[in-house]
Amino acid sequence: MGEKWVLMKTAQTPTNIAVIKYWGKRDETLILPVNDSISVTLDPAHLCTTTTVAVSPAFQQDRMWLNGKEISLSGGRYQNCLREIRTRAREVEDKERGIKIEKKDWEKLHLHIASYNNFPTAAGLASSAAGFACLVFALAKLMNVSEDESQLSAIARQGSGSACRSLFGGFVKWIMGKEDDGSDSLAVQLVDEKHWEDLFIIIAVVSSRQKETSSTSGMRESVETSSLLQHRAKEVVPKRTIKMEEAIQNRDFASFAKLACADSNQFHAVCLDTLPPIFYMNDTSHRIISYVEKWNRSEGTPQVAYTFDAGPNAVLIARDRKAAAQLIQRLLFYFPPKSDTDLDR
Amino acid sequence: MGEKWVLMKTAQTPTNIAVIKYWGKRDETLILPVNDSISVTLDPAHLCTTTTVAVSPAFQQDRMWLNGKEISLSGGRYQNCLREIRTRAREVEDKERGIKIEKKDWEKLHLHIASYNNFPTAAGLASSAAGFACLVFALAKLMNVSEDESQLSAIARQGSGSACRSLFGGFVKWIMGKEDDGSDSLAVQLVDEKHWEDLFIIIAVVSSRQKETSSTSGMRESVETSSLLQHRAKEVVPKRTIKMEEAIQNRDFASFAKLACADSNQFHAVCLDTLPPIFYMNDTSHRIISYVEKWNRSEGTPQVAYTFDAGPNAVLIARDRKAAAQLIQRLLFYFPPKSDTDLDR
Repeated sequence: MGEKWVLMKTAQTPTNIAVIKYWGKRDETLILPVNDSISVTLDPAHLCTTTTVAVSPAFQQDRMWLNGKEISLSGGRYQNCLREIRTRAREVEDKERGIKIEKKDWEKLHLHIASYNNFPTAAGLASSAAGFACLVFALAKLMNVSEDESQLSAIARQGSGSACRSLFGGFVKWIMGKEDDGSDSLAVQLVDEKHWEDLFIIIAVVSSRQKETSSTSGMRESVETSSLLQHRAKEVVPKRTIKMEEAIQNRDFASFAKLACADSNQFHAVCLDTLPPIFYMNDTSHRIISYVEKWNRSEGTPQVAYTFDAGPNAVLIARDRKAAAQLIQRLLFYFPPKSDTDLDR
Repeated sequence: MGEKWVLMKTAQTPTNIAVIKYWGKRDETLILPVNDSISVTLDPAHLCTTTTVAVSPAFQQDRMWLNGKEISLSGGRYQNCLREIRTRAREVEDKERGIKIEKKDWEKLHLHIASYNNFPTAAGLASSAAGFACLVFALAKLMNVSEDESQLSAIARQGSGSACRSLFGGFVKWIMGKEDDGSDSLAVQLVDEKHWEDLFIIIAVVSSRQKETSSTSGMRESVETSSLLQHRAKEVVPKRTIKMEEAIQNRDFASFAKLACADSNQFHAVCLDTLPPIFYMNDTSHRIISYVEKWNRSEGTPQVAYTFDAGPNAVLIARDRKAAAQLIQRLLFYFPPKSDTDLDR
């Protein structure tokens, strides 16, 4: 086979949805946040990224394709992830195929990366979270890296902050950390995916258009101009995080829903307090919130929590299968699918 | 004439638009705010309330008509204003008609009040501000009250907080005050209407529907549930008020616009941070903001400031006549008036 071999690994990583939001960095390069955040990881069978990484002596340079289209790897975020993972690469041997890669070889070998999202990219559905987590995890497998998920999460974080939370299932906490080098800013699993199996998550795609303000530039502008952001990060989120962890441990849906909705709204409030203001939610998002709030009040106890990331799409977390079924009925009633006639127009 | 006489006075009071917003009371009954606010009073020839107050021994009870429809005067806000102004009533004599009302007579005499707004009521255009200011001013004239505008403003405040700012032209500051009895919570004129004559104010009526959440209940809910409101009131607004006063004194439009836009956005951010969240702005409001922000950036210096009260309608303050003319052109371009065909549908 000589120089013609190709070694490949494929990984699949679900997206995650923050219920205590990450908005604002204290270090732009290392991607260190101004507060802790907590997320729920979606079922990998649904919204996920699939990434295949390949190495071959025949490859002339590192290249990457996202959803079939080649993209540049020259950005600092990709470079940081590739450098960090290469530093940890170890010897890999495939005796059957007569392939042996020494630790030192990884510096010279080039990579081809193909990544697919089975959901809209950059529409506020955390595509970069799943993407970078999957990239780092696939590379770690390919390069026989021995670090555990938390240690890998600190690498994925340097690609996209929220990516660090996609390396675990269940509920995950991104600890902001205190160190200047970011070594203690990593994700830990709070509970695994079996802990709260009643929950059903429904994503109402209000718009699959790419957002006008990227999360990166949006949060930079918020840090620079919002006079509410630091108060949120220092005074509000620390207390809210403790309460959210308790609600998750106790499977206390009423507290969970109250905290998740309040935190989503506060994140969008900080966006609105930014100069110029950032609007991720639209009138349809507002209508969904109003319906959910009215329904929850009429039932006396929350049936559904809502949370919106950097886009107009609603992530709706139903307390159980029955509430999820009712929610879908209500959504179809309030937002009837367009008839064929409408679509023809 | 005997008991058949009727004595009348008519007053006209413009509405005012806050450029540093009032949102949140520290005392619900006396209507004492959590922060100072600053407003600009509109030209009385345009958005205004006209109120005629009449007294006659023939009247059996206090009655009021708003826009031609009778409304109840039993609410605490009307009662507080009527009581406060009656306490200050003095002797009135019309020698020509042979009418004399002694100070003590005012307790027994009943009033008829007719009030008209020449703009949408309760659509976030401060109809209650103009309304209560006009009511108090008209009654003060009828009853020969000797108090000055600032003292009357403390009475109008008990009808609707922002009403206290409508008793002066130009730019007006509502000093929140410190006293528990509210005696020092009143309006003062910062500069009169001649000070900054270049400014042109354009109101883009996005919707004339009455708002779903009244200002009164909205701000109560914000005080109770928003974790950002107190920070805004205590840390942000005091500094912003000082800067806004400077900008007004110096006719510094760039600073004025930056502060007014930021404060409008922060008020709406606090509404969004309320549980359940309050949405006063809609997609059209957001589009107007985006256009103004883009235009201001492209010009290098602000041409127009925007501010939104408790509704989707934009109040646009242009730096001069030329900017106002350009603004109207742009608004008509981005939001073309509906054609007759559209209206027929």
